[in-house]
Amino acid sequence: MRISELSRSSAVPVPTIKFYLREGLLPPGRATGRNQAQYGPAHLRRLRLIRAFTTISRLDLSTVREILGVLEDDTLPVPELYEQVARVLLGREPEPDAAAQPATGSTVDDMAAQPASGSTVDDLVDQLGWQVGPDAPSRERLGQALGVLRQLGGACDSDFLLAYAEAADRLAVQDLDLLPHRDAGADAERTDRAAAVVRSVMLGVAFTAMRHLAYTHHAALRYRHG
Amino acid sequence: MRISELSRSSAVPVPTIKFYLREGLLPPGRATGRNQAQYGPAHLRRLRLIRAFTTISRLDLSTVREILGVLEDDTLPVPELYEQVARVLLGREPEPDAAAQPATGSTVDDMAAQPASGSTVDDLVDQLGWQVGPDAPSRERLGQALGVLRQLGGACDSDFLLAYAEAADRLAVQDLDLLPHRDAGADAERTDRAAAVVRSVMLGVAFTAMRHLAYTHHAALRYRHG
Repeated sequence: MRISELSRSSAVPVPTIKFYLREGLLPPGRATGRNQAQYGPAHLRRLRLIRAFTTISRLDLSTVREILGVLEDDTLPVPELYEQVARVLLGREPEPDAAAQPATGSTVDDMAAQPASGSTVDDLVDQLGWQVGPDAPSRERLGQALGVLRQLGGACDSDFLLAYAEAADRLAVQDLDLLPHRDAGADAERTDRAAAVVRSVMLGVAFTAMRHLAYTHHAALRYRHG
Repeated sequence: MRISELSRSSAVPVPTIKFYLREGLLPPGRATGRNQAQYGPAHLRRLRLIRAFTTISRLDLSTVREILGVLEDDTLPVPELYEQVARVLLGREPEPDAAAQPATGSTVDDMAAQPASGSTVDDLVDQLGWQVGPDAPSRERLGQALGVLRQLGGACDSDFLLAYAEAADRLAVQDLDLLPHRDAGADAERTDRAAAVVRSVMLGVAFTAMRHLAYTHHAALRYRHG
Protein backbone atom coordinates (compact mmCIF):
# COMPACT_ATOMS: atom_id res chain seq x y z
CA MET A 1 0.00 0.00 0.00
CA ARG A 2 1.06 3.61 -0.42
CA ILE A 3 1.78 5.94 2.47
CA SER A 4 -1.66 7.56 2.14
CA GLU A 5 -3.32 4.19 2.55
CA LEU A 6 -1.02 3.29 5.44
CA SER A 7 -2.14 6.54 7.03
CA ARG A 8 -5.82 5.75 6.54
CA SER A 9 -5.48 2.18 7.86
CA SER A 10 -3.57 3.25 10.95
CA ALA A 11 -5.28 6.61 11.54
CA VAL A 12 -1.79 8.11 11.83
CA PRO A 13 -1.31 11.30 9.78
CA VAL A 14 1.14 11.12 6.86
CA PRO A 15 3.52 13.75 8.36
CA THR A 16 3.77 11.67 11.54
CA ILE A 17 4.52 8.52 9.50
CA LYS A 18 7.24 10.46 7.63
CA PHE A 19 8.63 11.59 10.98
CA TYR A 20 8.84 7.96 12.20
CA LEU A 21 10.53 6.99 8.92
CA ARG A 22 13.13 9.77 9.31
CA GLU A 23 13.71 8.75 12.93
CA GLY A 24 14.20 5.13 11.91
CA LEU A 25 11.36 3.87 14.12
CA LEU A 26 9.61 2.59 11.01
CA PRO A 27 11.70 0.76 8.37
CA PRO A 28 11.62 2.30 4.87
CA GLY A 29 9.10 0.99 2.36
CA ARG A 30 9.97 -0.72 -0.91
CA ALA A 31 10.86 2.05 -3.39
CA THR A 32 8.60 1.90 -6.47
CA GLY A 33 9.55 5.13 -8.18
CA ARG A 34 10.99 8.52 -7.35
CA ASN A 35 9.41 9.69 -4.09
CA GLN A 36 7.13 6.65 -3.99
CA ALA A 37 7.28 3.56 -1.82
CA GLN A 38 5.10 0.60 -0.98
CA TYR A 39 4.36 -0.45 2.58
CA GLY A 40 3.14 -3.80 3.86
CA PRO A 41 1.25 -5.31 6.81
CA ALA A 42 4.48 -5.34 8.85
CA HIS A 43 4.60 -1.54 8.57
CA LEU A 44 1.01 -1.30 9.74
CA ARG A 45 1.71 -3.57 12.73
CA ARG A 46 4.84 -1.64 13.65
CA LEU A 47 2.97 1.66 13.36
CA ARG A 48 0.19 0.45 15.65
CA LEU A 49 2.85 -0.71 18.12
CA ILE A 50 4.53 2.72 18.12
CA ARG A 51 1.19 4.47 18.59
CA ALA A 52 0.14 2.17 21.42
CA PHE A 53 3.41 2.86 23.24
CA THR A 54 3.39 6.62 22.65
CA THR A 55 -0.27 7.58 22.96
CA ILE A 56 -1.57 5.02 25.45
CA SER A 57 1.48 4.16 27.56
CA ARG A 58 2.77 7.73 27.07
CA LEU A 59 6.33 6.53 26.52
CA ASP A 60 8.81 8.91 24.93
CA LEU A 61 10.23 7.98 21.54
CA SER A 62 13.66 7.00 22.82
CA THR A 63 12.03 4.49 25.20
CA VAL A 64 9.90 3.17 22.33
CA ARG A 65 13.02 2.84 20.21
CA GLU A 66 14.72 0.80 22.95
CA ILE A 67 11.72 -1.50 23.37
CA LEU A 68 11.52 -2.05 19.60
CA GLY A 69 15.24 -2.89 19.70
CA VAL A 70 14.63 -5.48 22.41
CA LEU A 71 11.74 -6.98 20.41
CA GLU A 72 13.89 -7.25 17.29
CA ASP A 73 16.41 -9.50 18.98
CA ASP A 74 14.99 -12.87 17.94
CA THR A 75 17.58 -14.78 19.94
CA LEU A 76 16.41 -13.43 23.29
CA PRO A 77 14.68 -16.10 25.42
CA VAL A 78 11.28 -15.06 26.81
CA PRO A 79 12.49 -14.53 30.42
CA GLU A 80 15.25 -12.16 29.24
CA LEU A 81 12.74 -10.45 26.97
CA TYR A 82 10.54 -9.52 29.93
CA GLU A 83 13.54 -8.55 32.04
CA GLN A 84 15.00 -6.30 29.36
CA VAL A 85 11.67 -4.59 28.73
CA ALA A 86 11.37 -4.03 32.49
CA ARG A 87 14.88 -2.59 32.47
CA VAL A 88 13.97 -0.16 29.68
CA LEU A 89 10.70 0.88 31.35
CA LEU A 90 12.15 1.26 34.84
CA GLY A 91 15.56 2.52 33.88
CA ARG A 92 14.45 5.39 31.69
CA GLU A 93 15.91 8.72 32.64
CA PRO A 94 13.97 11.18 34.75
CA GLU A 95 11.65 13.42 32.75
CA PRO A 96 13.27 16.34 30.91
CA ASP A 97 12.06 18.92 33.42
CA ALA A 98 13.71 16.99 36.17
CA ALA A 99 16.82 16.51 34.05
CA ALA A 100 16.99 20.29 33.71
CA GLN A 101 17.60 20.52 37.43
CA PRO A 102 21.14 21.02 38.61
CA ALA A 103 23.00 17.77 38.23
CA THR A 104 23.29 15.62 41.33
CA GLY A 105 25.01 12.36 41.85
CA SER A 106 22.16 10.69 43.64
CA THR A 107 18.79 11.71 42.18
CA VAL A 108 17.38 8.22 42.18
CA ASP A 109 18.87 6.96 45.39
CA ASP A 110 17.71 9.72 47.72
CA MET A 111 14.48 8.16 48.84
CA ALA A 112 15.93 4.68 48.78
CA ALA A 113 18.53 5.74 51.31
CA GLN A 114 16.23 4.70 54.13
CA PRO A 115 17.73 2.06 56.35
CA ALA A 116 16.25 -1.41 56.02
CA SER A 117 14.28 -0.48 52.89
CA GLY A 118 15.97 -3.34 51.06
CA SER A 119 15.02 -5.94 53.60
CA THR A 120 11.30 -5.54 53.02
CA VAL A 121 11.78 -6.15 49.31
CA ASP A 122 13.73 -9.27 50.19
CA ASP A 123 10.98 -10.31 52.60
CA LEU A 124 8.32 -9.92 49.92
CA VAL A 125 10.39 -11.72 47.31
CA ASP A 126 11.00 -14.54 49.79
CA GLN A 127 7.33 -14.78 50.76
CA LEU A 128 6.31 -15.08 47.12
CA GLY A 129 9.14 -17.48 46.37
CA TRP A 130 10.23 -15.30 43.46
CA GLN A 131 13.63 -16.24 42.11
CA VAL A 132 14.94 -12.96 40.76
CA GLY A 133 18.50 -11.72 40.63
CA PRO A 134 19.76 -9.22 43.19
CA ASP A 135 20.27 -6.60 40.46
CA ALA A 136 16.82 -6.89 38.83
CA PRO A 137 15.86 -3.28 38.04
CA SER A 138 12.44 -3.67 39.64
CA ARG A 139 13.98 -4.53 43.01
CA GLU A 140 15.51 -1.08 43.38
CA ARG A 141 12.35 0.75 42.33
CA LEU A 142 10.23 -1.38 44.65
CA GLY A 143 12.63 -0.63 47.50
CA GLN A 144 12.33 3.10 46.80
CA ALA A 145 8.52 2.99 46.78
CA LEU A 146 8.44 0.92 49.98
CA GLY A 147 10.85 3.39 51.59
CA VAL A 148 8.40 6.24 50.97
CA LEU A 149 5.46 4.14 52.18
CA ARG A 150 7.38 3.44 55.38
CA GLN A 151 8.00 7.16 55.88
CA LEU A 152 4.25 7.76 55.64
CA GLY A 153 3.68 5.67 58.75
CA GLY A 154 3.17 2.09 59.83
CA ALA A 155 -0.13 1.62 58.04
CA CYS A 156 1.26 -0.30 55.06
CA ASP A 157 2.41 -3.39 56.94
CA SER A 158 3.75 -6.51 55.33
CA ASP A 159 0.32 -8.19 55.03
CA PHE A 160 -0.91 -5.11 53.23
CA LEU A 161 1.95 -5.26 50.74
CA LEU A 162 1.66 -9.01 50.41
CA ALA A 163 -1.85 -8.56 49.01
CA TYR A 164 -0.38 -6.40 46.24
CA ALA A 165 2.44 -8.86 45.55
CA GLU A 166 0.05 -11.83 45.45
CA ALA A 167 -2.17 -10.01 42.97
CA ALA A 168 0.88 -9.21 40.82
CA ASP A 169 1.91 -12.85 40.98
CA ARG A 170 -1.51 -14.23 40.07
CA LEU A 171 -2.02 -11.81 37.19
CA ALA A 172 1.45 -12.47 35.76
CA VAL A 173 0.75 -16.23 35.76
CA GLN A 174 -2.59 -15.66 34.05
CA ASP A 175 -0.87 -13.50 31.47
CA LEU A 176 1.94 -16.00 30.79
CA ASP A 177 -0.67 -18.74 30.37
CA LEU A 178 -1.61 -17.01 27.11
CA LEU A 179 1.87 -17.65 25.68
CA PRO A 180 2.56 -20.76 23.61
CA HIS A 181 3.80 -23.72 25.60
CA ARG A 182 7.57 -24.08 25.56
CA ASP A 183 7.19 -27.36 23.67
CA ALA A 184 5.49 -25.48 20.85
CA GLY A 185 8.96 -24.72 19.55
CA ALA A 186 11.12 -21.68 19.04
CA ASP A 187 9.08 -20.41 16.10
CA ALA A 188 5.83 -20.11 18.00
CA GLU A 189 7.72 -18.52 20.85
CA ARG A 190 9.28 -15.95 18.54
CA THR A 191 6.07 -15.03 16.72
CA ASP A 192 4.29 -14.14 19.90
CA ARG A 193 7.03 -12.19 21.65
CA ALA A 194 5.97 -8.76 20.39
CA ALA A 195 2.34 -9.50 21.24
CA ALA A 196 3.34 -10.70 24.71
CA VAL A 197 5.28 -7.53 25.46
CA VAL A 198 2.58 -5.22 24.13
CA ARG A 199 0.00 -7.17 26.10
CA SER A 200 1.92 -6.83 29.37
CA VAL A 201 2.46 -3.10 28.80
CA MET A 202 -1.21 -2.50 27.90
CA LEU A 203 -2.41 -4.57 30.86
CA GLY A 204 -0.25 -2.32 33.05
CA VAL A 205 -2.00 0.74 31.63
CA ALA A 206 -5.40 -0.93 31.97
CA PHE A 207 -4.72 -1.90 35.58
CA THR A 208 -3.67 1.65 36.48
CA ALA A 209 -6.89 2.99 34.95
CA MET A 210 -8.94 0.33 36.78
CA ARG A 211 -7.31 1.30 40.08
CA HIS A 212 -8.28 4.94 39.49
CA LEU A 213 -11.88 3.93 38.75
CA ALA A 214 -11.97 1.75 41.86
CA TYR A 215 -10.63 4.57 44.07
CA THR A 216 -13.18 6.99 42.65
CA HIS A 217 -16.06 4.57 43.20
CA HIS A 218 -15.13 3.42 46.72
CA ALA A 219 -14.07 6.87 47.95
CA ALA A 220 -17.47 8.18 46.86
CA LEU A 221 -19.25 5.34 48.70
CA ARG A 222 -17.40 6.19 51.90
CA TYR A 223 -17.17 9.94 51.91
CA ARG A 224 -19.69 11.49 49.62
CA HIS A 225 -22.95 10.50 51.23
CA GLY A 226 -22.05 11.44 54.83
CA MET B 1 16.80 24.83 60.04
CA ARG B 2 19.03 26.42 57.42
CA ILE B 3 19.10 25.29 53.83
CA SER B 4 22.27 23.25 54.39
CA GLU B 5 20.54 21.28 57.14
CA LEU B 6 17.40 20.88 55.01
CA SER B 7 19.68 19.46 52.33
CA ARG B 8 21.30 17.00 54.75
CA SER B 9 17.98 15.86 56.21
CA SER B 10 16.39 15.33 52.81
CA ALA B 11 19.50 14.15 50.90
CA VAL B 12 18.55 16.72 48.24
CA PRO B 13 21.49 18.92 47.12
CA VAL B 14 21.29 22.63 47.95
CA PRO B 15 21.26 23.73 44.26
CA THR B 16 18.25 21.48 43.65
CA ILE B 17 16.45 22.93 46.67
CA LYS B 18 17.17 26.45 45.35
CA PHE B 19 15.80 25.37 41.98
CA TYR B 20 12.55 24.17 43.60
CA LEU B 21 12.33 27.47 45.51
CA ARG B 22 12.77 29.50 42.31
CA GLU B 23 10.16 27.34 40.55
CA GLY B 24 7.71 27.86 43.41
CA LEU B 25 7.41 24.14 44.13
CA LEU B 26 8.78 24.77 47.60
CA PRO B 27 7.45 27.80 49.53
CA PRO B 28 10.11 30.33 50.64
CA GLY B 29 11.60 29.99 54.11
CA ARG B 30 11.33 32.59 56.87
CA ALA B 31 13.92 35.29 56.14
CA THR B 32 16.36 35.67 59.03
CA GLY B 33 18.89 37.99 57.45
CA ARG B 34 20.24 38.94 54.08
CA ASN B 35 20.54 35.77 52.01
CA GLN B 36 19.51 33.62 54.95
CA ALA B 37 16.26 31.84 55.67
CA GLN B 38 14.92 29.27 58.08
CA TYR B 39 13.02 26.19 56.98
CA GLY B 40 10.71 23.97 58.99
CA PRO B 41 9.37 20.40 59.03
CA ALA B 42 6.73 21.36 56.44
CA HIS B 43 9.53 22.17 53.99
CA LEU B 44 11.15 18.82 54.65
CA ARG B 45 7.84 17.00 54.10
CA ARG B 46 7.16 18.93 50.90
CA LEU B 47 10.69 18.23 49.65
CA ARG B 48 10.31 14.49 50.27
CA LEU B 49 6.99 14.60 48.44
CA ILE B 50 8.55 16.30 45.41
CA ARG B 51 11.43 13.81 45.35
CA ALA B 52 9.11 10.81 45.65
CA PHE B 53 7.05 12.06 42.70
CA THR B 54 10.04 12.97 40.52
CA THR B 55 12.58 10.24 41.25
CA ILE B 56 10.36 7.26 42.04
CA SER B 57 7.19 7.92 40.05
CA ARG B 58 9.28 9.69 37.38
CA LEU B 59 6.73 12.47 37.01
CA ASP B 60 7.78 15.69 35.31
CA LEU B 61 7.81 18.88 37.36
CA SER B 62 4.70 20.38 35.79
CA THR B 63 2.74 17.24 36.74
CA VAL B 64 4.17 17.42 40.27
CA ARG B 65 3.16 21.09 40.44
CA GLU B 66 -0.39 20.18 39.44
CA ILE B 67 -0.62 17.40 42.04
CA LEU B 68 0.69 19.71 44.75
CA GLY B 69 -1.97 22.22 43.67
CA VAL B 70 -4.68 19.58 44.04
CA LEU B 71 -3.34 18.62 47.49
CA GLU B 72 -3.36 22.26 48.64
CA ASP B 73 -7.09 22.63 48.04
CA ASP B 74 -8.31 21.82 51.55
CA THR B 75 -11.95 22.07 50.53
CA LEU B 76 -11.78 19.17 48.10
CA PRO B 77 -13.68 16.09 49.38
CA VAL B 78 -11.69 12.84 49.29
CA PRO B 79 -13.50 11.36 46.23
CA GLU B 80 -12.78 14.49 44.17
CA LEU B 81 -9.20 14.45 45.46
CA TYR B 82 -8.61 10.99 43.97
CA GLU B 83 -10.44 11.89 40.79
CA GLN B 84 -8.45 15.07 40.25
CA VAL B 85 -5.14 13.32 40.90
CA ALA B 86 -6.19 10.64 38.39
CA ARG B 87 -7.02 13.38 35.92
CA VAL B 88 -3.58 14.96 36.35
CA LEU B 89 -1.80 11.61 36.05
CA LEU B 90 -3.80 10.34 33.08
CA GLY B 91 -4.35 13.63 31.35
CA ARG B 92 -0.77 14.75 31.23
CA GLU B 93 0.48 15.64 27.81
CA PRO B 94 2.39 13.12 25.73
CA GLU B 95 6.13 13.10 26.38
CA PRO B 96 8.14 15.94 24.83
CA ASP B 97 9.58 13.73 22.08
CA ALA B 98 6.07 12.85 21.04
CA ALA B 99 5.01 16.48 21.30
CA ALA B 100 7.80 17.33 18.87
CA GLN B 101 6.05 15.23 16.25
CA PRO B 102 4.00 17.03 13.66
CA ALA B 103 0.77 18.15 15.28
CA THR B 104 -2.24 15.96 14.71
CA GLY B 105 -5.78 16.38 15.83
CA SER B 106 -6.18 12.90 17.13
CA THR B 107 -3.00 11.67 18.79
CA VAL B 108 -4.75 10.09 21.72
CA ASP B 109 -7.84 8.82 20.00
CA ASP B 110 -6.21 6.80 17.22
CA MET B 111 -6.11 3.49 19.01
CA ALA B 112 -9.38 4.11 20.78
CA ALA B 113 -11.10 4.43 17.43
CA GLN B 114 -11.83 0.71 17.44
CA PRO B 115 -15.49 -0.08 17.25
CA ALA B 116 -17.05 -1.37 20.44
CA SER B 117 -13.99 -0.50 22.53
CA GLY B 118 -16.20 1.56 24.81
CA SER B 119 -18.66 -1.22 25.45
CA THR B 120 -16.09 -3.49 27.10
CA VAL B 121 -15.18 -0.74 29.53
CA ASP B 122 -18.87 -0.34 30.28
CA ASP B 123 -19.19 -4.12 30.72
CA LEU B 124 -16.31 -4.19 33.20
CA VAL B 125 -17.59 -1.18 35.10
CA ASP B 126 -21.04 -2.80 35.27
CA GLN B 127 -19.66 -6.14 36.42
CA LEU B 128 -17.75 -4.48 39.24
CA GLY B 129 -20.67 -2.23 40.10
CA TRP B 130 -18.45 0.81 39.92
CA GLN B 131 -20.37 4.06 39.89
CA VAL B 132 -18.12 6.38 37.93
CA GLY B 133 -19.09 9.22 35.65
CA PRO B 134 -19.06 8.76 31.88
CA ASP B 135 -16.29 11.33 31.56
CA ALA B 136 -13.94 9.90 34.20
CA PRO B 137 -10.47 10.24 32.62
CA SER B 138 -9.57 6.61 33.39
CA ARG B 139 -12.48 5.35 31.29
CA GLU B 140 -10.97 6.67 28.09
CA ARG B 141 -7.48 5.35 28.82
CA LEU B 142 -8.88 1.96 29.79
CA GLY B 143 -10.85 1.86 26.54
CA GLN B 144 -7.69 2.64 24.56
CA ALA B 145 -5.70 -0.12 26.29
CA LEU B 146 -8.53 -2.63 25.81
CA GLY B 147 -8.73 -1.63 22.14
CA VAL B 148 -5.08 -2.58 21.63
CA LEU B 149 -5.53 -5.82 23.58
CA ARG B 150 -8.44 -6.69 21.31
CA GLN B 151 -6.29 -6.04 18.24
CA LEU B 152 -3.74 -8.52 19.58
CA GLY B 153 -6.28 -11.32 19.36
CA GLY B 154 -9.07 -12.90 21.34
CA ALA B 155 -6.88 -14.15 24.16
CA CYS B 156 -7.74 -11.41 26.66
CA ASP B 157 -11.39 -12.29 27.12
CA SER B 158 -13.68 -10.67 29.63
CA ASP B 159 -12.92 -13.19 32.41
CA PHE B 160 -9.25 -12.43 31.93
CA LEU B 161 -9.82 -8.70 32.29
CA LEU B 162 -12.25 -9.21 35.16
CA ALA B 163 -9.42 -10.76 37.21
CA TYR B 164 -7.46 -7.52 36.77
CA ALA B 165 -10.46 -5.36 37.64
CA GLU B 166 -11.29 -7.43 40.74
CA ALA B 167 -7.69 -7.12 41.95
CA ALA B 168 -7.83 -3.34 41.38
CA ASP B 169 -11.11 -3.21 43.30
CA ARG B 170 -9.87 -5.25 46.26
CA LEU B 171 -6.59 -3.33 46.55
CA ALA B 172 -8.33 0.04 46.37
CA VAL B 173 -10.68 -0.99 49.20
CA GLN B 174 -7.74 -2.18 51.28
CA ASP B 175 -6.00 1.12 50.64
CA LEU B 176 -9.03 3.26 51.52
CA ASP B 177 -9.44 1.27 54.76
CA LEU B 178 -6.28 3.03 55.95
CA LEU B 179 -8.02 6.41 55.74
CA PRO B 180 -9.77 7.88 58.78
CA HIS B 181 -13.45 7.03 59.06
CA ARG B 182 -15.71 9.74 57.68
CA ASP B 183 -17.07 10.33 61.17
CA ALA B 184 -13.57 11.26 62.35
CA GLY B 185 -14.34 14.76 61.15
CA ALA B 186 -13.06 17.09 58.48
CA ASP B 187 -9.78 17.74 60.29
CA ALA B 188 -8.64 14.14 60.30
CA GLU B 189 -9.75 13.83 56.70
CA ARG B 190 -7.72 16.88 55.71
CA THR B 191 -4.56 15.87 57.57
CA ASP B 192 -4.29 12.57 55.81
CA ARG B 193 -5.08 13.65 52.28
CA ALA B 194 -1.49 14.20 51.17
CA ALA B 195 -0.44 10.90 52.71
CA ALA B 196 -3.34 9.12 51.00
CA VAL B 197 -2.41 10.46 47.58
CA VAL B 198 1.29 9.73 47.98
CA ARG B 199 0.42 6.25 49.22
CA SER B 200 -1.77 5.48 46.22
CA VAL B 201 0.88 6.78 43.80
CA MET B 202 3.69 4.82 45.50
CA LEU B 203 1.56 1.66 45.64
CA GLY B 204 1.08 2.06 41.90
CA VAL B 205 4.86 2.18 41.41
CA ALA B 206 5.34 -0.75 43.80
CA PHE B 207 2.72 -2.83 41.99
CA THR B 208 4.34 -2.18 38.61
CA ALA B 209 7.71 -3.29 40.00
CA MET B 210 6.10 -6.38 41.57
CA ARG B 211 4.51 -7.29 38.23
CA HIS B 212 7.91 -7.09 36.54
CA LEU B 213 9.44 -9.34 39.22
CA ALA B 214 6.59 -11.81 38.86
CA TYR B 215 6.97 -11.93 35.07
CA THR B 216 10.70 -12.49 35.38
CA HIS B 217 10.25 -15.29 37.91
CA HIS B 218 7.42 -17.14 36.18
CA ALA B 219 8.81 -16.73 32.66
CA ALA B 220 12.08 -18.27 33.89
CA LEU B 221 10.18 -21.20 35.46
CA ARG B 222 8.42 -21.88 32.18
CA TYR B 223 10.99 -21.20 29.53
CA ARG B 224 14.47 -21.25 30.96
CA HIS B 225 14.84 -24.85 32.03
CA GLY B 226 13.49 -26.47 28.88
